Amino acid sequence: MKTIVYPGTFDPLTNGHLEIIERASKIFDKVVVLVARREEKRTLFTLEERLEMVKTSLKNFKNVEVDVLDSLLIDYLKKHKIKLVLRGLRTYQDFEYEKAMFEINYELNSSIETIFLITRTFASISSTLVKEVAMNNGDVSKFVPEIVNKKIKDKIRKKV
Amino acid sequence: MKTIVYPGTFDPLTNGHLEIIERASKIFDKVVVLVARREEKRTLFTLEERLEMVKTSLKNFKNVEVDVLDSLLIDYLKKHKIKLVLRGLRTYQDFEYEKAMFEINYELNSSIETIFLITRTFASISSTLVKEVAMNNGDVSKFVPEIVNKKIKDKIRKKV
Amino acid sequence: MKTIVYPGTFDPLTNGHLEIIERASKIFDKVVVLVARREEKRTLFTLEERLEMVKTSLKNFKNVEVDVLDSLLIDYLKKHKIKLVLRGLRTYQDFEYEKAMFEINYELNSSIETIFLITRTFASISSTLVKEVAMNNGDVSKFVPEIVNKKIKDKIRKKV
Amino acid sequence: MKTIVYPGTFDPLTNGHLEIIERASKIFDKVVVLVARREEKRTLFTLEERLEMVKTSLKNFKNVEVDVLDSLLIDYLKKHKIKLVLRGLRTYQDFEYEKAMFEINYELNSSIETIFLITRTFASISSTLVKEVAMNNGDVSKFVPEIVNKKIKDKIRKKV
Amino acid sequence: MKTIVYPGTFDPLTNGHLEIIERASKIFDKVVVLVARREEKRTLFTLEERLEMVKTSLKNFKNVEVDVLDSLLIDYLKKHKIKLVLRGLRTYQDFEYEKAMFEINYELNSSIETIFLITRTFASISSTLVKEVAMNNGDVSKFVPEIVNKKIKDKIRKKV
Amino acid sequence: MKTIVYPGTFDPLTNGHLEIIERASKIFDKVVVLVARREEKRTLFTLEERLEMVKTSLKNFKNVEVDVLDSLLIDYLKKHKIKLVLRGLRTYQDFEYEKAMFEINYELNSSIETIFLITRTFASISSTLVKEVAMNNGDVSKFVPEIVNKKIKDKIRKKV
Repeated sequence: MKTIVYPGTFDPLTNGHLEIIERASKIFDKVVVLVARREEKRTLFTLEERLEMVKTSLKNFKNVEVDVLDSLLIDYLKKHKIKLVLRGLRTYQDFEYEKAMFEINYELNSSIETIFLITRTFASISSTLVKEVAMNNGDVSKFVPEIVNKKIKDKIRKKV
Repeated sequence: MKTIVYPGTFDPLTNGHLEIIERASKIFDKVVVLVARREEKRTLFTLEERLEMVKTSLKNFKNVEVDVLDSLLIDYLKKHKIKLVLRGLRTYQDFEYEKAMFEINYELNSSIETIFLITRTFASISSTLVKEVAMNNGDVSKFVPEIVNKKIKDKIRKKV
Repeated sequence: MKTIVYPGTFDPLTNGHLEIIERASKIFDKVVVLVARREEKRTLFTLEERLEMVKTSLKNFKNVEVDVLDSLLIDYLKKHKIKLVLRGLRTYQDFEYEKAMFEINYELNSSIETIFLITRTFASISSTLVKEVAMNNGDVSKFVPEIVNKKIKDKIRKKV
Repeated sequence: MKTIVYPGTFDPLTNGHLEIIERASKIFDKVVVLVARREEKRTLFTLEERLEMVKTSLKNFKNVEVDVLDSLLIDYLKKHKIKLVLRGLRTYQDFEYEKAMFEINYELNSSIETIFLITRTFASISSTLVKEVAMNNGDVSKFVPEIVNKKIKDKIRKKV
Repeated sequence: MKTIVYPGTFDPLTNGHLEIIERASKIFDKVVVLVARREEKRTLFTLEERLEMVKTSLKNFKNVEVDVLDSLLIDYLKKHKIKLVLRGLRTYQDFEYEKAMFEINYELNSSIETIFLITRTFASISSTLVKEVAMNNGDVSKFVPEIVNKKIKDKIRKKV
Repeated sequence: MKTIVYPGTFDPLTNGHLEIIERASKIFDKVVVLVARREEKRTLFTLEERLEMVKTSLKNFKNVEVDVLDSLLIDYLKKHKIKLVLRGLRTYQDFEYEKAMFEINYELNSSIETIFLITRTFASISSTLVKEVAMNNGDVSKFVPEIVNKKIKDKIRKKV
């Protein structure tokens, strides 16, 4: 059985992430969405909030699971005996960053394989841009799942 | 009458911005330079200082106006019934960022049109580099209007 | 009155070109689509065929005209007293090429201004890719106007 | 069973191609290397020569097969009921080209999925550079399988 | 005698930096590694720690010296009558940043010349990625000199 | 004594090439401009014409020599006991191509070192664009040395 992990911060999950997860779920037997912990002050949403939004949005995908990443990715993979990593490519800057991470991970553990999908819809949408639009009271409902759209409004209202 | 807005932080205005504004003022009937508010601690100059430098530097352009942007750009455009946005392209990173913003703005309001000019003189000059040079006591007089050159020296002297 | 020219080979016209022309026709008073002559053996379609396809596809645009370019672009502009050039930007390679052409044209005549629009739909479609797909019997109807779709099939049938 | 095709001209096969094929053979159940026909005068090696070099170099891979592509890729995939396409990414230019092909293939048939691997060893090696080096009497043995190294010397000796 | 300076933050020195310094030491008569001061809170290591690691790692290079940069680079060069600056190029983003810095330095002092070497081994390694891996308890020994590997572990243990 | 070679086709020499040669002549003891032979039908000017234009334009540089390259570059270097290669970087596409050539040359002979200068004036000018402008009767006198300007007019008049 081929299992692949999809690591990220998901602060918050966007429709771009969803597209990659859905496509991967048709290619591989199991997809594990790995939500990275990160320092609290560096994310808009807490780990728990990010996890809740991911789990709610993915509940209808039968072969998709959600887990927390709080170590180096290669240590998680070794512990869970997984060898495949999934990454989405939107832009040139993504490509450059992903190439660097891929080369470093390969040096650290040459049995890990990274697989890339090029994003299709809303290729330009990133979590950062979604937050920027939302903070200016823009409507992000086209770019994120329903629960994220609701949560991000609450979050920003509280902050202001 | 064709009116176009040129939004930015202008922290501070550079000769690169000036070049774009001058060229646009010959193509369109009116150019509105939109100075974005931003959180105070994230800019070197306050909104008032940035506005003053922009207004002083542009006082000889008859069809150029200056205004403050404190909402999402598309909301400003709707309110003022303007459909054209002007952006300068210096580098590949600019192109990538602008492409993303353009796609998002289009999703939010498909009647907005963004027009690009490629910068000519001092293509590499950005507000960030100007601040970096000035903070190391470098001479930025070639890269910014006179009032900015004067203000940036005062600003940095006070900070140190 | 602001007139802008849109130069290209249009071998053949694609929906990407059409999108740029349509958007420009809403911004400027007149758009002149300039079909470049080129050596016959270097294009799939003759100049006459390319012109016919462009004219037919654009017949409903009231402020769009079609003309032939058989000199250097800057000489055409000088002769017709036009100062604005329109170019579409799809990709990084486009950006690099356009930046070079823009700098050279500026050196040759500094009163010419080039304006860029970033393509939206089918950003990846180029005349080259359309020909590649068509030559392998692929269906290009989604990517080109109706008359191009019909002509390209005839053309390729004759060639084989 | 997950089958993936790896299309290309392989004029000639390089160690970069081999690396991609070997890595894919560990991820997917079957890899079909698809050698595209092309017009004879546009390749250095004939289709038969290219096929022979590919087959010889891959004979030890149990789940790798070789086939000829003489239609549009999406037609081959439909006929053979395959939905996965494999592509290697070396550079930014690759990324741009692959992004365009991916978008076009998706428009032509949305059930096809393209998967990318970033090349590791000799990331810069392309068939074109191999031919350039060989034609200048350079030693290409580090960059190509043994049979290609031998064939390319014969080929070039005959040409001169 | 040709002296060249190699400026950077070296927070910390990586094997990528070492490679560039070693190669430059074979081309030029003297290489001065210039460790930039920076604000303390913006670097992981203090200036003294960064200097110590650089000096220890370079002690066997006879024509390499180490110095502190606490002014604008062009002022250091003028004071020490040096005209050559060395920079490593790893990626496209590097190229863009270096192109900008080069143009600005040239405007500030046209007698300065910047020379670029493209990195070879571990092209993707940057000080930033080394810190990211180390902070997640990853093994960075392949990417940094021995003393950096030891120091970075101590540093991070104390921080946690 | 440090000798560096500057290989190219120089079809024809441009002011961009001249700038690189002049700057290198101040850094290195000797610069050898290496004019590559190429197949006659693939260049506008014959090898003899290209050599003449290079020699005439460089006659005032005391430490610059001109030679013909009719083998692989690394073989020329070995024969002449030279270890340094000079290349100009104008654009991203240059960077990508140069990175590939550098990696291949390094694999073929690891003692060769390639040094890059980023072009300053007329960064966009290439021999290809110069020919394109000249063939459309454009004035290329700003972009090439005097002898090239004269020769290219003769050449094109004869062709037409």
